[in-house]
Amino acid sequence: MFIVMEGPDGSGKSTQIALLKEYLNENGRECLVTREPGGTAVGEAVRDVILNPEYKEMSDVTEMLLYAASRAQLMAEVIIPALEEGKVVICDRFVDSSIVYQGIARGLGVDTVAAVNAPGIGAYRPDCIFFIDITEEEGLRRKKAQKKLDRLEQESIDFHAMVSKGYRQVLAGREEVVRIDGAAPVEEIQRQIREEVDRRLAPKRQGDREYAGF
Amino acid sequence: MFIVMEGPDGSGKSTQIALLKEYLNENGRECLVTREPGGTAVGEAVRDVILNPEYKEMSDVTEMLLYAASRAQLMAEVIIPALEEGKVVICDRFVDSSIVYQGIARGLGVDTVAAVNAPGIGAYRPDCIFFIDITEEEGLRRKKAQKKLDRLEQESIDFHAMVSKGYRQVLAGREEVVRIDGAAPVEEIQRQIREEVDRRLAPKRQGDREYAGF
Repeated sequence: MFIVMEGPDGSGKSTQIALLKEYLNENGRECLVTREPGGTAVGEAVRDVILNPEYKEMSDVTEMLLYAASRAQLMAEVIIPALEEGKVVICDRFVDSSIVYQGIARGLGVDTVAAVNAPGIGAYRPDCIFFIDITEEEGLRRKKAQKKLDRLEQESIDFHAMVSKGYRQVLAGREEVVRIDGAAPVEEIQRQIREEVDRRLAPKRQGDREYAGF
Repeated sequence: MFIVMEGPDGSGKSTQIALLKEYLNENGRECLVTREPGGTAVGEAVRDVILNPEYKEMSDVTEMLLYAASRAQLMAEVIIPALEEGKVVICDRFVDSSIVYQGIARGLGVDTVAAVNAPGIGAYRPDCIFFIDITEEEGLRRKKAQKKLDRLEQESIDFHAMVSKGYRQVLAGREEVVRIDGAAPVEEIQRQIREEVDRRLAPKRQGDREYAGF
């Protein structure tokens, strides 16, 4: 099962993923958590380039291609093998992040970002995307309280507003997307996530069938 | 004027570029030489990832995207501004290298590589592509005599044969391509290159007109 956690910076994705992983492990599910960009040796090297605050001259197209490169490596080396072994894979961000950040907020276009990402993703699609929806002000406030901001997080409030709006636009009406109100307490958000994951994993619990793939 | 030097590893591109630059400078032409991957701070960081011999697990799609990222940065930061100032830009490899290496030799497809590179290149096209054509055996022999091989150069002779064949296929019949026999002496190759560059720069010499762009 392929689970993706999406949402603006500061929406609490990492916290929710850690709690979900704990829950799945306690229930005997092998579970792999990945992060984007990064998650492989090559991807982490690319991540260092993308997030380096010194590279202020990085073009939007370059940034888009580097995210796609990191993701392609993660797919080939980690996600596809794990899915094929029947593991639960949880991704901290996936292609919709690129569509929102590069395609909409940076204005490169949804189709351009989709075309650049297509070769690395192939026919694989997330079974479930949790969208933790928070306002841009709340997201920024949380991040600032937390730590030193990286290059992307230094963007203006307008950029973050476009991201929040972009997420709502891109993820709306899609069957695999579960929208969660990010203003709810951590425990309530986690409860909703676990309920949804249990529901989707249920068929496997009733028997011992092989993971069916995509 | 936008000049590209293409050809398999070991075909002598760097030598010819250095000699051409010398010639253009002596004739009072401002001339900028770039290399791929690399040529910018971001691009050099990406180059280090691409050519790192430790990353044997790098997927073909990742490699393709990293080349495209490095190129996009070079276009935005170096090539486009230089062309717009009327300089002569000489690129050691450009998008046809990716089409040959990734699209044909690695089998990702010519259209896929073209689509991934399109956003970074925009409407810019080389005015002249010199294709130094050598046999794959000769190219490998020269490279091996020269230095320690990087990750790509360690590929088999079959791969290099596909590259040589791919170049002939991709560059055939294109008006902007000048094929040069790489078995000729260095001086003879340079003579042909200078002759062609002089011919193409001629209109500018007769007056003082601005560079017309693309």
